[in-house]
Amino acid sequence: MPFHTHTLANGLQIIGETSPSARSAAIGFFVRTGSRDEIQAVSGVTHFLEHMIFKGSERRSYLDVNRDFDRIGAHYNAYTSEENTVFYAAILPEYLPQAVDLLADILRPSLRTEDFEMEKKVILEEIAMYDDQPTWSAYDNAKRIYFATHPLGNSILGSPDSITALKRDQMYEYFQRRYVAKNILVAAAGNFDWPAFVDLVARQCDRWEGGQPGRQGIRETPGSGMFEVMTKAKVNQEHVLLISSAPPADARLRHAADTVAMVLGDDSGSRMYWALVDPGLAESADASFHDYEGAGAYYISFSCEPGQAEENLGVTHDLLRDLQRDGITEEELHQAKSKILSRVVRGSERPMGRMQAIGMAWTYLNRYRSVDDDLRDFDAVTLRDVREVLDRYPIDRVTTLALGPLEKLPRPNGNGQK
Amino acid sequence: MPFHTHTLANGLQIIGETSPSARSAAIGFFVRTGSRDEIQAVSGVTHFLEHMIFKGSERRSYLDVNRDFDRIGAHYNAYTSEENTVFYAAILPEYLPQAVDLLADILRPSLRTEDFEMEKKVILEEIAMYDDQPTWSAYDNAKRIYFATHPLGNSILGSPDSITALKRDQMYEYFQRRYVAKNILVAAAGNFDWPAFVDLVARQCDRWEGGQPGRQGIRETPGSGMFEVMTKAKVNQEHVLLISSAPPADARLRHAADTVAMVLGDDSGSRMYWALVDPGLAESADASFHDYEGAGAYYISFSCEPGQAEENLGVTHDLLRDLQRDGITEEELHQAKSKILSRVVRGSERPMGRMQAIGMAWTYLNRYRSVDDDLRDFDAVTLRDVREVLDRYPIDRVTTLALGPLEKLPRPNGNGQK
Repeated sequence: MPFHTHTLANGLQIIGETSPSARSAAIGFFVRTGSRDEIQAVSGVTHFLEHMIFKGSERRSYLDVNRDFDRIGAHYNAYTSEENTVFYAAILPEYLPQAVDLLADILRPSLRTEDFEMEKKVILEEIAMYDDQPTWSAYDNAKRIYFATHPLGNSILGSPDSITALKRDQMYEYFQRRYVAKNILVAAAGNFDWPAFVDLVARQCDRWEGGQPGRQGIRETPGSGMFEVMTKAKVNQEHVLLISSAPPADARLRHAADTVAMVLGDDSGSRMYWALVDPGLAESADASFHDYEGAGAYYISFSCEPGQAEENLGVTHDLLRDLQRDGITEEELHQAKSKILSRVVRGSERPMGRMQAIGMAWTYLNRYRSVDDDLRDFDAVTLRDVREVLDRYPIDRVTTLALGPLEKLPRPNGNGQK
Repeated sequence: MPFHTHTLANGLQIIGETSPSARSAAIGFFVRTGSRDEIQAVSGVTHFLEHMIFKGSERRSYLDVNRDFDRIGAHYNAYTSEENTVFYAAILPEYLPQAVDLLADILRPSLRTEDFEMEKKVILEEIAMYDDQPTWSAYDNAKRIYFATHPLGNSILGSPDSITALKRDQMYEYFQRRYVAKNILVAAAGNFDWPAFVDLVARQCDRWEGGQPGRQGIRETPGSGMFEVMTKAKVNQEHVLLISSAPPADARLRHAADTVAMVLGDDSGSRMYWALVDPGLAESADASFHDYEGAGAYYISFSCEPGQAEENLGVTHDLLRDLQRDGITEEELHQAKSKILSRVVRGSERPMGRMQAIGMAWTYLNRYRSVDDDLRDFDAVTLRDVREVLDRYPIDRVTTLALGPLEKLPRPNGNGQK
């Protein structure tokens, strides 16, 4: 499928993969800013700002934004991660002009003080709600202790204190500094006309300030190695999350890391599935590879009856020790590849999937990656690559957080020997 | 895209929509049986049987089934509804033979007594888990009181009593009677070769008993009109669900009913969104149209702080009364169409979506429906159709269930007058 790029004079980048046989199009505005780009005093401002974007611009009130999206039947939303804030819409091809107009317009928000104070309450409720979800809470706290002083440990939502103290002008300052043209990528995929798309984006975005993009603290970390038990009496199950280091988003070894995580903790047929879920020792078990700019991590988790947590932690340490020592088998490699190739293909079948894929590839690798590029790289993973990634990033050197009713949980000895 | 059909000598039907540009294929076995086909003594047997299907056949143990699916990287699962049990897999095209072999093989399960007793515990846990989910519990109980003696009111999961009492031989009898060739449709979509597919299915399925398909109690119902408050002290929010009657799955007016539900209760920009969610009166609000064989229903719901439930119920009744009396506006019709057309197109972009769509169309209409057929029919809905569907199926004649901490909730007067 044809791929195109264009850069506006102010530095804003536009990319697109056109697919004339598609029946829809997807557009995304990728702002290269997230919780890792925040200082502690404004913790949570990126996510709060994402909400404020939908509150309206000079040309549109909050009601207008909602109605204009609905009028074109757009499937639209946004999300904030540690390093990206992404606004996107999937639409029928004929509504491309309206969708670009809307997304570009709201990215220059009014940030009205009245809306800011109203939305602050929503954010505080969201923080309380997420705090009640043990899976999220375990994830957020495990990340915090693993990354320690590394900025990837910053909370995405912020704290009740930081949000309460946040002023509209602090958000405006952050917006002006981070939502600059040089920090923004616009991506489209599906059925659309490239030159017309570039014109539409340029018409609205070429007046935006170029600005100075940038990010502090890009570095790897082996993790703190801490072991913490957070007691939450109201939670029924014990949620245990182990984090170990893995390759960053642009590493050659990232495909091997994904393969290792799949063999260890995919939701069916993985080592953790057979050792913990199938025999009924744990309600759920999972391992996945998360890649960031300059760093990466494996997230390895299970949830179970509290009385079962100690044994399960022992089983998990044994699995990690065996994996670290012996790697994976040829049969496991083959099975993991089948699953990953199938996942990549299925993820590529909608313009929304392709838009996200080309946007992320451009963000992290600064180059185009076709579906076939991804398939080829996953298919090329060898047992030697798996050995190499384990040697460089030992998966059994973990930081551990347990969250649930337990008041204590014995720390297994060494690297999993019991 | 080319559509094909074939019927085996024993009555098993095979359909397929081939799309050579797709990169994957999806296959589904649609068994035309569900909770509505159960008698009370075996309540829950359909869903329990769906689980048992994955426990193995003469040729495969439970482990073999899991490993064989994983080996081909299949994305696979199954679900049981009021009237269908569907087993499906999405795969890369080269694995079609293995996928057909696996799905067809497990549909002749061994139903080993030992596996049956083990799985019974899993089902009982699943019932307890769902019972703890207020949204599901409200849905299940509202359906029960709305349909009353109509078989669509049967519980999909069954009760702890019915499952505990169920014997392996009762399940086997149900299996032999319902999983017959004449009651099964095999559908495929995406990148696959039609003649080869028919051969693969025929090779395994042509020995299956033809059997006698059939279903009792196919009729419409206006609903009981009951109003019930179920007190669950442990639940935080009050969950209120109103059901009114709507057209059945094969009715000409089904597209108008879908449009009405979208205008009333889509998750963004609908009347319920602006009246309940946007001002913060309710946490969530929703209306949707469910169509069944011979009957249909609108499900209209909200969840909120218990103290807010009475006012919200009044607001909802007002919305229903206004909608019933005045219908919808030209602008609302246009907006709903944009959303529905966009939803239909996005749902059609993967073989999995098309396989489900052609399978359901064949099940309920006994004919092929292309994406363009669906788009044309939705686009053709007029304000007169909306008036007609409201006249024939008054949306404000509701059956109501409230589930949550409240001990009582006043029933609004008449059809929503306060």
